Amino acid sequence: MIVVMKTDATEAQILDVQKHIRELGFKDHRIHGEERNVVAVLGHVYPELVDELGVLEGVDTVVRISKPFKLASREVNPYDTVVRVGPVEIGGGSIVVMGGPCSVDSEDNVLEAARAVKAAGGHILRGGAFKPRTSPYAFRGHGERGLHILAAARQETGLPVITEVMDPRDVELVASYADILQIGARNMQNFVLLDEVGKAKKPVLLKRGISASVEEWLLAAEYILSHGNRDVILCERGIRTFETATRFTFDVNAIPLVKQLSHLPVIGDPSHATGKWSLVQPVGLAALAAGADGLIIEVHPNPDQALSDGAQSLTPKNFAKLIGNIRTLGNALGRPLAPPVEDEPVAVRRIG
Amino acid sequence: MIVVMKTDATEAQILDVQKHIRELGFKDHRIHGEERNVVAVLGHVYPELVDELGVLEGVDTVVRISKPFKLASREVNPYDTVVRVGPVEIGGGSIVVMGGPCSVDSEDNVLEAARAVKAAGGHILRGGAFKPRTSPYAFRGHGERGLHILAAARQETGLPVITEVMDPRDVELVASYADILQIGARNMQNFVLLDEVGKAKKPVLLKRGISASVEEWLLAAEYILSHGNRDVILCERGIRTFETATRFTFDVNAIPLVKQLSHLPVIGDPSHATGKWSLVQPVGLAALAAGADGLIIEVHPNPDQALSDGAQSLTPKNFAKLIGNIRTLGNALGRPLAPPVEDEPVAVRRIG
Amino acid sequence: MIVVMKTDATEAQILDVQKHIRELGFKDHRIHGEERNVVAVLGHVYPELVDELGVLEGVDTVVRISKPFKLASREVNPYDTVVRVGPVEIGGGSIVVMGGPCSVDSEDNVLEAARAVKAAGGHILRGGAFKPRTSPYAFRGHGERGLHILAAARQETGLPVITEVMDPRDVELVASYADILQIGARNMQNFVLLDEVGKAKKPVLLKRGISASVEEWLLAAEYILSHGNRDVILCERGIRTFETATRFTFDVNAIPLVKQLSHLPVIGDPSHATGKWSLVQPVGLAALAAGADGLIIEVHPNPDQALSDGAQSLTPKNFAKLIGNIRTLGNALGRPLAPPVEDEPVAVRRIG
Amino acid sequence: MIVVMKTDATEAQILDVQKHIRELGFKDHRIHGEERNVVAVLGHVYPELVDELGVLEGVDTVVRISKPFKLASREVNPYDTVVRVGPVEIGGGSIVVMGGPCSVDSEDNVLEAARAVKAAGGHILRGGAFKPRTSPYAFRGHGERGLHILAAARQETGLPVITEVMDPRDVELVASYADILQIGARNMQNFVLLDEVGKAKKPVLLKRGISASVEEWLLAAEYILSHGNRDVILCERGIRTFETATRFTFDVNAIPLVKQLSHLPVIGDPSHATGKWSLVQPVGLAALAAGADGLIIEVHPNPDQALSDGAQSLTPKNFAKLIGNIRTLGNALGRPLAPPVEDEPVAVRRIG
Repeated sequence: MIVVMKTDATEAQILDVQKHIRELGFKDHRIHGEERNVVAVLGHVYPELVDELGVLEGVDTVVRISKPFKLASREVNPYDTVVRVGPVEIGGGSIVVMGGPCSVDSEDNVLEAARAVKAAGGHILRGGAFKPRTSPYAFRGHGERGLHILAAARQETGLPVITEVMDPRDVELVASYADILQIGARNMQNFVLLDEVGKAKKPVLLKRGISASVEEWLLAAEYILSHGNRDVILCERGIRTFETATRFTFDVNAIPLVKQLSHLPVIGDPSHATGKWSLVQPVGLAALAAGADGLIIEVHPNPDQALSDGAQSLTPKNFAKLIGNIRTLGNALGRPLAPPVEDEPVAVRRIG
Repeated sequence: MIVVMKTDATEAQILDVQKHIRELGFKDHRIHGEERNVVAVLGHVYPELVDELGVLEGVDTVVRISKPFKLASREVNPYDTVVRVGPVEIGGGSIVVMGGPCSVDSEDNVLEAARAVKAAGGHILRGGAFKPRTSPYAFRGHGERGLHILAAARQETGLPVITEVMDPRDVELVASYADILQIGARNMQNFVLLDEVGKAKKPVLLKRGISASVEEWLLAAEYILSHGNRDVILCERGIRTFETATRFTFDVNAIPLVKQLSHLPVIGDPSHATGKWSLVQPVGLAALAAGADGLIIEVHPNPDQALSDGAQSLTPKNFAKLIGNIRTLGNALGRPLAPPVEDEPVAVRRIG
Repeated sequence: MIVVMKTDATEAQILDVQKHIRELGFKDHRIHGEERNVVAVLGHVYPELVDELGVLEGVDTVVRISKPFKLASREVNPYDTVVRVGPVEIGGGSIVVMGGPCSVDSEDNVLEAARAVKAAGGHILRGGAFKPRTSPYAFRGHGERGLHILAAARQETGLPVITEVMDPRDVELVASYADILQIGARNMQNFVLLDEVGKAKKPVLLKRGISASVEEWLLAAEYILSHGNRDVILCERGIRTFETATRFTFDVNAIPLVKQLSHLPVIGDPSHATGKWSLVQPVGLAALAAGADGLIIEVHPNPDQALSDGAQSLTPKNFAKLIGNIRTLGNALGRPLAPPVEDEPVAVRRIG
Repeated sequence: MIVVMKTDATEAQILDVQKHIRELGFKDHRIHGEERNVVAVLGHVYPELVDELGVLEGVDTVVRISKPFKLASREVNPYDTVVRVGPVEIGGGSIVVMGGPCSVDSEDNVLEAARAVKAAGGHILRGGAFKPRTSPYAFRGHGERGLHILAAARQETGLPVITEVMDPRDVELVASYADILQIGARNMQNFVLLDEVGKAKKPVLLKRGISASVEEWLLAAEYILSHGNRDVILCERGIRTFETATRFTFDVNAIPLVKQLSHLPVIGDPSHATGKWSLVQPVGLAALAAGADGLIIEVHPNPDQALSDGAQSLTPKNFAKLIGNIRTLGNALGRPLAPPVEDEPVAVRRIG
């Protein structure tokens, strides 16, 4: 950490900063610059120190040098994390595709979507039983009944299931049905919820918040990792910017950046990131070309009947076409599409 | 709601859209424009209809006309909501100031801050017992012990107390100590938590999320209102933009805009919005000049010892100076500083 | 255009709006909605009408329906524009790569970079003779001497040359040396300059402004097209968002969106969009997977000696590696790398 | 400047960085941290050095310590700059109000607006003769005829005139009519134009770009100052953010921040920053409460006939009301409204 003094800081102020640093148990190291003095702080500093030193007299700014995340960092753990979900490996060098409806609506629609995902070569079934909705008057999901429907679809197809959990009181319930717990973008900094899924025995897919920096995203992962749950999958789903022509802006830069900073697998969600089904394929392929370990895609047999997000859902036919293009692209990239899931169903793992 | 057809939409596609609208129970109304056709949808439409119609063949875009919030809207309720908290009225035409430390640290510091807030003419004591923190390694608050300390400070000074609640399981506990429940910016769309505070019998201060639009903010208020809790206070605390010279960008436009759109009181938080104590006074006065009903300000007797956000905390001396300037400004604006809180303590209202 | 009236608008106000519309020469069409009235405006409306009608009494908002760009629109011209630059075709279905140093520094470096671009299979040489610089104290380019150096490199390698023009007074000069005129991001709405390059007889590469919406970008292209210059190439180079971990955020969504909205070719600039050489390859490949017609890449023989933007420049070796990966990717996408440029130099076309 | 090495940087890489720093003529200073090494660079560093050192092997990041603007900096010149325009002083402790139509349309309208500005107590007449317009099909101003109209209005009222210049070839012409040259937001980084107005003998009002950081804004001022023109007035006019409920977001934080960083006067433009006349007064008063030295306000006798930006223009009646409120507020703030301009016209100063 570097404390930058003002150009007109007095000698007494500089000495006071140095004394303060030593009193907190760190080593100080003063550098006389051309324009101003700076004082380096040596030792295992913590982020809050920026504030504590920043208020001292004569200080201009305090600059942090070390990265605040540890367990999520590739500097600490250089080896790629591979998350295993039943027969599927995420982050192991092949491309994994999750597909399914935004909301779990009728059992028929979910089963039809699940069969379509399986038939096309997708690996994991997605679907929301608990839905975060901007308006209190919108459909908020079928809750536990939705979880039952997802489990039935898994029973038939063998596809592992991912679904969102929003309430810390529901983590145990959702974990008893789902194979992957999803933390939605709005809850990326719901620290109470992160603590709970950190204690769960299921992999967690952590969506990036729409205004979260890459650093904050990795710190949210750190919350989960710090409770001992090492099976964290990151998911870029678009950030909020000034551009309104698309629903969000898919931050494709973040994909290779996070792969450099962290050992965790990263997947892309082009459905939410664009909000338009006609952009899902090009942006999905772009995410993979940038290095993503997989995609999560909204698929609905009848997009115009979907209870949410129909505009961004692919039909089964378009989903199959996308998977075909992923297969070709994956081969060119040297990261082939993961093998199809076998028919034997994944055991339904209820806790307790 | 207006369905805008593509310029090359076929007659069959337009008729199909009209049929679809009627099947959903709405009236359709077609307009032949110079370049393209549009179809108006008449009736009590819901926001999701944008998606449902947007996926039909030949549709270019769907434009929403009506506002999605109702109970929060001034069109529905033209009269200013006044929230009463013990002896203090928020939104009633005079300026209310909340002050206190970011985190509840030691009992001594909180008591000293509370006395300073009271002595200067502040009305409500703020302080965090449960703290949302970006890093899992940072101080996360003293929890219930912090609530005790706040209650003790109220006992001595008579100042009502506001504190944040983060966990839906803690709402009852926090409501048993606090006079106002605060929903932090990161939880503005934690709908589970909004539901719980909507059912609580205490006023709620709802901070705007750092990337929430004004519409989403009012929809979050709608969640609370829809459960029957009408005592909602809005708080602008800065949005995230490209500018990094300040911690956030205080959206001063939002103050008069929200006063026009909604009947709910609005206060400003210049401490978090700027991140720098030297900007707190000018931005706080700006919020008031723009029409805010009050301010919430971080005050700490020793900012360099604060366990969080010291850089943006005012000393008691600077807080008193700010209150003096608010008094002068309020008189000029015709919205005087609210009268001081009397010494008789507010009864500690424990539920049950 | 749709005029949305307030819920409490009076009959007289609505009639006044209708009268106003007719007086301006448009047709009016009133719709009685459940909550409020709206009035459609029929005819060849212009964007400013939003303002003119928005100030009338009783009006809530005015919503624009038609797109403000015409010549740039695929609705008007459905066929892909192909821009021919000497032997190179941009937008014709194969991938074109432009490479070279950010600034033209020494003749040796530029020649070395040009040879490397050629040898690797790149098609066009880029290099800045006039450089926009944030600080007045930074190196601002060699001016006409830089143009001479670029022409010499073309003479030797046969690669057509692209370079930026910043001053409307320099358009003729730059056009006498360059094969493509580049408009930088900061000048995307320098309308005086757009007018001048619209009158020039050279293709124009139009970079998207860092805070320009897709609509504004296409309107800037419309300026150039409206002067009769149809050879416009669009270039996405990253937008400014809250994220600071990369220099800008590459808006990959914009690539397929613009291809849908417009017939103009679009290329990507991953060097400026990321600011880090280690992200150039993954983001460049992503742009192509999303549908870009080509890339523009900074290449410098000695990045640590570059007079600007060294941190984002590829070495010749890494550039060659990138081209190899583009070749593989392009084949998989069905859009192969364009054939190499032959040795015969493009004639130096001086005006006059 | 601080070079932060990677945690796994080798000794040879660190020594190479130190050698590189010395070869460039700076002093190096190595610090052994707990996690990693950092190397301080001592001497008169330049911003580009960040790039030059950032590409060396083993370097993680390079952190700039000193501020890149000098002449604009309060550290260099602690005394407030006061810009004198005829009888008006900007930045001298009293509040100055500029008012007038967005575009110069008819002579009658401009004269009527000018009389209204004068009568209400405004100090300077604004009006656009050259208008930057997003679309090439919109009204772009009357050009020199507009300048004549402004000069006629000054002749009658005595109000100095401010008007925008967009083309470097027009600077001399515009300076021959105007008392203040305005650089619009879109041209804040049109460095060619900044150079030209830096050489002009007239004060310059420099609007902040809609996506310009405070640092970039002050660097743009530095361009003008570096040519010897010390009469620069800064103008905050709103930045582009994700919020679309208002046209831009007025960055009120920037007002006191810039007053701390720089000695230049700062005014606010609530008309463009909000895009809605009903928000102009509250946001304008907020700007003043935050410390602005004045305001620039759109005033039009008939907003519904304005050729641009009618929706954000005040009527003369509302402008007079605003001035009344500014007078009251200014007295409370200790920064009174500047005295009215006397009737004797300012001499028309034609160059040459």
